[in-house]
Amino acid sequence: MSFQIFGIEGMPYITEGDDVAQLIYDAALSNGIEFEDKDIIVVTQKIVSKAEGRVVKVEDVELSTFAVHIGETMKKDPRLVEVVLGETSRIIRMKRNSLIVETHHGHVCANAGVDFSNVEEGYITLLPADPDSSARNIRDKLEALTCKKLALIITDTWGRAWRLGQVDFAIGVAGMLPFRDYRGERDYMGHELHVTNIAVADEIAGAAELVKGKSSGVPVVIIRGYDYPEGDGKASNIIRPLEEDLFR
Amino acid sequence: MSFQIFGIEGMPYITEGDDVAQLIYDAALSNGIEFEDKDIIVVTQKIVSKAEGRVVKVEDVELSTFAVHIGETMKKDPRLVEVVLGETSRIIRMKRNSLIVETHHGHVCANAGVDFSNVEEGYITLLPADPDSSARNIRDKLEALTCKKLALIITDTWGRAWRLGQVDFAIGVAGMLPFRDYRGERDYMGHELHVTNIAVADEIAGAAELVKGKSSGVPVVIIRGYDYPEGDGKASNIIRPLEEDLFR
Repeated sequence: MSFQIFGIEGMPYITEGDDVAQLIYDAALSNGIEFEDKDIIVVTQKIVSKAEGRVVKVEDVELSTFAVHIGETMKKDPRLVEVVLGETSRIIRMKRNSLIVETHHGHVCANAGVDFSNVEEGYITLLPADPDSSARNIRDKLEALTCKKLALIITDTWGRAWRLGQVDFAIGVAGMLPFRDYRGERDYMGHELHVTNIAVADEIAGAAELVKGKSSGVPVVIIRGYDYPEGDGKASNIIRPLEEDLFR
Repeated sequence: MSFQIFGIEGMPYITEGDDVAQLIYDAALSNGIEFEDKDIIVVTQKIVSKAEGRVVKVEDVELSTFAVHIGETMKKDPRLVEVVLGETSRIIRMKRNSLIVETHHGHVCANAGVDFSNVEEGYITLLPADPDSSARNIRDKLEALTCKKLALIITDTWGRAWRLGQVDFAIGVAGMLPFRDYRGERDYMGHELHVTNIAVADEIAGAAELVKGKSSGVPVVIIRGYDYPEGDGKASNIIRPLEEDLFR
């Protein structure tokens, strides 16, 4: 059992209206990379958001009283806070300088995935409005271009409740199941596994981050040789339902 | 930028007193695998625990009143609960059938990492007493055997607060830093990164899980070609200190 992870270099800077699938295809070709059946294409959220115009001009943000207050007490840019609140359905924690929220998609993360990084000065990026749908669109187009059977994961970089630092998570999935479900199977010793249901889409997101890095301008990575669980899954399937949640 | 991940097959069943480093070395050799400088060796907690005798015979467990009570109300085996409590310094959540605790090491996970899987019937495995020290011992011995510069990560499979399923996390680290720290560096657009500090040891743990699986008997994986951050790090560095924790 083995697989490979490699980046697609030479992607151009993405702006609204760009065809991400076509640009991935072109960059791969110009690097001599040929797609293979069961490749997983891992795409950074940022380029999807920019292509979809999910970008806000800071000077256009109209401040609410609440955003100004949070900005002052948490020492955050109130315009960023305003944009975060617009993407938020529920505030989970608001303490010191952390604003942990549930987004309209249901994901729980800091600042609703909104940030200033890897976008022009004076702009803020949002998460895609429907990252699973974005993943499906890019994957379908890439399959048509390559005539290969592909899976695609859109990722973002988030913190964790009890662990320092951040890792990449899957926020959009297409062409595969996000879980490898072992429940009902037997372990090496023959015992039945009762709870083991691995969130492989998140593990793949993290693995791809190792290649992407944060400053190297490699927003797209291919995972080749991993026999991913096939099916029509979504990253939204990974969100723990509120009624099963012990920490919200 | 690219790297490879592959399993070392043919590891024997591990029992107390086994020399894990020697057995990894022998299994690699018999598979024709030669170690290279900067290989990361990723080892499943279970084999380390068994080699260190961190195994409890179920019939030897003496039940406390509290464990019996929790067993009844949470529909868990009270002997498992008793063993979990012995490994616990603080109960974080006790609700429905979830027992989320802080272990004596400071890690937050379900059931203190204690379980019945991949061990003989009638036994329960605990986490290693000091997984960072276990990692260092195995890594130092493997470096001596191979004359190569290696990093080593011990992993376990845990759930997450807001996401379904489980992923592998790093519980022991040796020969590398657990973080790739981008703070103070610039992103692709030239903005300074203020918070980005990637927990690469956890991402590597998850990537390795994709190869190990849960039922295939491949407890050791090599990550080759990833330029890991060098230094004398520990997995305990990843634990969020209680005073910075918003969810404990």
